[in-house]
Amino acid sequence: MIPPDTHLQIGSLLFEGLDQIDLTGPFEVLSRVPNSTYRVYAPSLDPVRDVRGLRILPDATLAEAPRLDVLHVPGGQGQEALMRDAAVLGWIRDQAAGAGHVLSVCTGALLLGAAGLLVGRRATTYWNAVHLLPFFGAEPVDERVVIDRDADGRTWVFAAGVTAGIDGALRLAAALRGDEAAQAIQLGMQYAPEPPFDSGTPRTAPPAIVARARAAAADLTARREATARAIAAERGIRPPEPASVTR
Amino acid sequence: MIPPDTHLQIGSLLFEGLDQIDLTGPFEVLSRVPNSTYRVYAPSLDPVRDVRGLRILPDATLAEAPRLDVLHVPGGQGQEALMRDAAVLGWIRDQAAGAGHVLSVCTGALLLGAAGLLVGRRATTYWNAVHLLPFFGAEPVDERVVIDRDADGRTWVFAAGVTAGIDGALRLAAALRGDEAAQAIQLGMQYAPEPPFDSGTPRTAPPAIVARARAAAADLTARREATARAIAAERGIRPPEPASVTR
Repeated sequence: MIPPDTHLQIGSLLFEGLDQIDLTGPFEVLSRVPNSTYRVYAPSLDPVRDVRGLRILPDATLAEAPRLDVLHVPGGQGQEALMRDAAVLGWIRDQAAGAGHVLSVCTGALLLGAAGLLVGRRATTYWNAVHLLPFFGAEPVDERVVIDRDADGRTWVFAAGVTAGIDGALRLAAALRGDEAAQAIQLGMQYAPEPPFDSGTPRTAPPAIVARARAAAADLTARREATARAIAAERGIRPPEPASVTR
Repeated sequence: MIPPDTHLQIGSLLFEGLDQIDLTGPFEVLSRVPNSTYRVYAPSLDPVRDVRGLRILPDATLAEAPRLDVLHVPGGQGQEALMRDAAVLGWIRDQAAGAGHVLSVCTGALLLGAAGLLVGRRATTYWNAVHLLPFFGAEPVDERVVIDRDADGRTWVFAAGVTAGIDGALRLAAALRGDEAAQAIQLGMQYAPEPPFDSGTPRTAPPAIVARARAAAADLTARREATARAIAAERGIRPPEPASVTR
């Protein structure tokens, strides 16, 4: 917990082709953290289109962002296009270096990996990308929210896929301002979920549905894997043996 | 379920001061309903600011909307400013008349009430507004998602507060395209929630937190109540006895 009178600068990265709820789920929580300024930052001031077409406006450019105390990196299909983007990765690296807390949601973790920030981290990401984490030097952990702390005292919150960002952001809010602050936010958003089916993970969803989802994403998964392998090779990270790459 | 080869027009109302996740939660689901066009409609093409500042762009104006098969009405504090807005309420009324399915989230239900659409309906809304439903002729039901069908065969899906829209939208997706379609969407968004606290309803949250939330919203609640009373009086709806107005 941070002293309540310390004002916090909280910022989310917004980018073309993100999965909007990777951003908007945590937005609902992070924009209500007491004594904080929360803003959304993008490479330019243009509207950004999510993978299904929702158009969101950033509050400011990456260059205009102050030093953030809390950095939030969402994911989604558009993440792959940023894996070699020096400007965005440099911004993530610089902001993470100064931040006390970093939250990634879904394949936002791969952006942290591309920025070189996952070496030695316990982490998670979207269920269909978790096998890629070792290419970035991370240890994949099969939990919905993984919290890791580094030698500098920085707290890393990794949320698994998409809606896991809500759970991750509530855990982060509790880390920042205490359990009661997080509970008040949870009440405000009436977050007492009742999914109508138990189909939210590849373990619980009907196998045919999982197979179709993997098939539909096969091209993207192959591209992500090629990128991860190339980055691992450049950095001398020994890629995991095929047997350990489980999906 | 609707024949799979029937293309569906799905639309969400976007308005100033909404609670963004009332829109973006269902967006994640509704934008992935097979064989559908999903768009976001607002009074004008200007960016709309949510209650905490997220700026979202509509796809088209209300006037440009086709006849919708599925109408989604979100809520949030900005709902109160629309309770006498003849243009918006007329649009809701007209679209609901032609739609086979209507989804309200949070205090979006009060907008349906102001449009005269709740008489005789079983319904729900945000936990701190559910006592207002009888003023619009509705029977409040203490469930996270309430599904009602009217004499014309129209399906009404009422989601309680804020994040309940995700659960409501998944129920709606199942009603539109079957359980497997909804399960595939649920897997895609990895929706297997793990709230870190059991603080998402006034029954389960710590009483002091509930009391503070009610106090913080007291002005808005009073304004909502005055509006609801006035509308009930105009329509000759007998307001509920005080004893039955439980919060």
